[in-house]
Amino acid sequence: MVRLTDPAELVARAGSGDRRALARLVSLVEDDTPEGAAALAGVFADTGRAWTTGLTGAPGAGKSTVADRLVTRARMRGDEVAVVAVDPSSPFTGGAILGDRIRMQDHISDAGVFIRSMASRGHLGGIAVTTPRVVTLLDGVGFPEVLVETVGVGQVEVEVAAAVDTTVVVVNPRWGDSIQAAKAGLLEVGDVFVVNKADRPGADDSVRDLRQMLELGHPEGWWPPIVTTVASTGEGIDDLGAAIDDHRAHLADTGTLAVRRQQRLVAELASAIDAELRREVRQVAGDEAWEAARVGVIERRVDPWTAARGLMAAARPR
Amino acid sequence: MVRLTDPAELVARAGSGDRRALARLVSLVEDDTPEGAAALAGVFADTGRAWTTGLTGAPGAGKSTVADRLVTRARMRGDEVAVVAVDPSSPFTGGAILGDRIRMQDHISDAGVFIRSMASRGHLGGIAVTTPRVVTLLDGVGFPEVLVETVGVGQVEVEVAAAVDTTVVVVNPRWGDSIQAAKAGLLEVGDVFVVNKADRPGADDSVRDLRQMLELGHPEGWWPPIVTTVASTGEGIDDLGAAIDDHRAHLADTGTLAVRRQQRLVAELASAIDAELRREVRQVAGDEAWEAARVGVIERRVDPWTAARGLMAAARPR
Repeated sequence: MVRLTDPAELVARAGSGDRRALARLVSLVEDDTPEGAAALAGVFADTGRAWTTGLTGAPGAGKSTVADRLVTRARMRGDEVAVVAVDPSSPFTGGAILGDRIRMQDHISDAGVFIRSMASRGHLGGIAVTTPRVVTLLDGVGFPEVLVETVGVGQVEVEVAAAVDTTVVVVNPRWGDSIQAAKAGLLEVGDVFVVNKADRPGADDSVRDLRQMLELGHPEGWWPPIVTTVASTGEGIDDLGAAIDDHRAHLADTGTLAVRRQQRLVAELASAIDAELRREVRQVAGDEAWEAARVGVIERRVDPWTAARGLMAAARPR
Repeated sequence: MVRLTDPAELVARAGSGDRRALARLVSLVEDDTPEGAAALAGVFADTGRAWTTGLTGAPGAGKSTVADRLVTRARMRGDEVAVVAVDPSSPFTGGAILGDRIRMQDHISDAGVFIRSMASRGHLGGIAVTTPRVVTLLDGVGFPEVLVETVGVGQVEVEVAAAVDTTVVVVNPRWGDSIQAAKAGLLEVGDVFVVNKADRPGADDSVRDLRQMLELGHPEGWWPPIVTTVASTGEGIDDLGAAIDDHRAHLADTGTLAVRRQQRLVAELASAIDAELRREVRQVAGDEAWEAARVGVIERRVDPWTAARGLMAAARPR
């Protein structure tokens, strides 16, 4: 079998529902190949149609179960949905307990659902660089809904989860969980908050704590709703769905959606320039030159700014 | 009068206590001139001797008054001290009430104290780029102590305040102040916490709240002490000084100091490369090319990654 690599052909197939072609395309984008770049360029005019939702929270908060329920909800109203999971503990990425995996099987065999787990870190700038490109691709080939699931622990993961239309932050009624969320910067990025596992003691306290913390200096026009769910039974998922829909309507009604999306595109342009520049310096200046600069700086033989200019000059003989 | 610009001469004069020469040098560094770069290169072998302390917290928390007291403390034990203020509300930068300014006068007329307010933002990458260079210069010309004061609100300001040996976070006994500090990411960066204005009601609650929040997932070997002060009267400043000294001893004893400083230098090298690259693209690709790319991306005529490569190609004809 010839391995198809023609981007236009792959895009056409992916757009008509060929999941293998789509999986191949995503790999080409993830691996930063010319074909992947061509595919992105090809679909870009068709992007900006998907509703993108980010799900983030501490490991064990139940993000994947919530995601699973949101997928079911989208399917029930007839929408196809793509899931990008960058949470290493997610069952989407294969890291969780058996029960979760079995539940996911339903979606995996559903042709209306495309699930992609991202190799976190690794090549290029890692998930921060790769995820927006993959989300753009999924948008461009026609998914009306894209879910991005990340762990709300690292700065990068939080930024990835926040670079969507609606960011959902999932916490639990554990003591200190809301404070942890605050410390991780999640209160600043959440558009909708979920107290999941709300059948456990302390859910009301968690809601009150979150409410109080959110009331401290939240300058924008949107007051993030706090929804309680028991995702394992499906309880509260309709409320969550309604809250996401409300946020969507709010963004659309106030014109904020267009502004936000434009800002994200410009930010993506800036970050793409950074990534290109960094790759170029790495390629041309090479590992040895970098290592020499690093050691020189640590031993205080050369200051960082002189070393940086030296690396630049080495990278770019004129 | 001839305006002196020879970096070696300026460094020599600054090192022997000529404050005008030093002020001129700092300007040359701030303005990113070749002379400033040469001065930094010249003093770099002599850096790594100063103890650098960052002070951050919300506007109105009393950071400047605390800084003022710490300056007095340093002077009383005979140390010269430099203050870099990037807080626009600081009396060091001229933004505060009369009483504060009058108090500062004592230090301004003291030849053992060098105070520099940084123009926040503006040219280059703003304070994130400029501040570490200025701190390095002050270290290199021989100040045994450098204080960096920033507002703990923006991400950049927090990073600047944290890029020191000891980071001091100042809060007040106001309700919600500790939570605000958590939300701003200050709990993650603080080595020493100060509840200032502790003569007001609620100081004990603030200490307890901070303690509880800090106990949530603080993995390192150092447990940040929480000191109560009334900086306006000087109460508690000795305790604060002792806490900073303790942290210093801890870093030295555990070998963490050398590791931290090396990490900071390597991070500075990486950030210097970024700044160089960005400047180069801006210079060569030009404002018009950037604007064309920006508009093309917003109108979805060209994807951000293709646009970035286009700008790179324009910047660097081979």
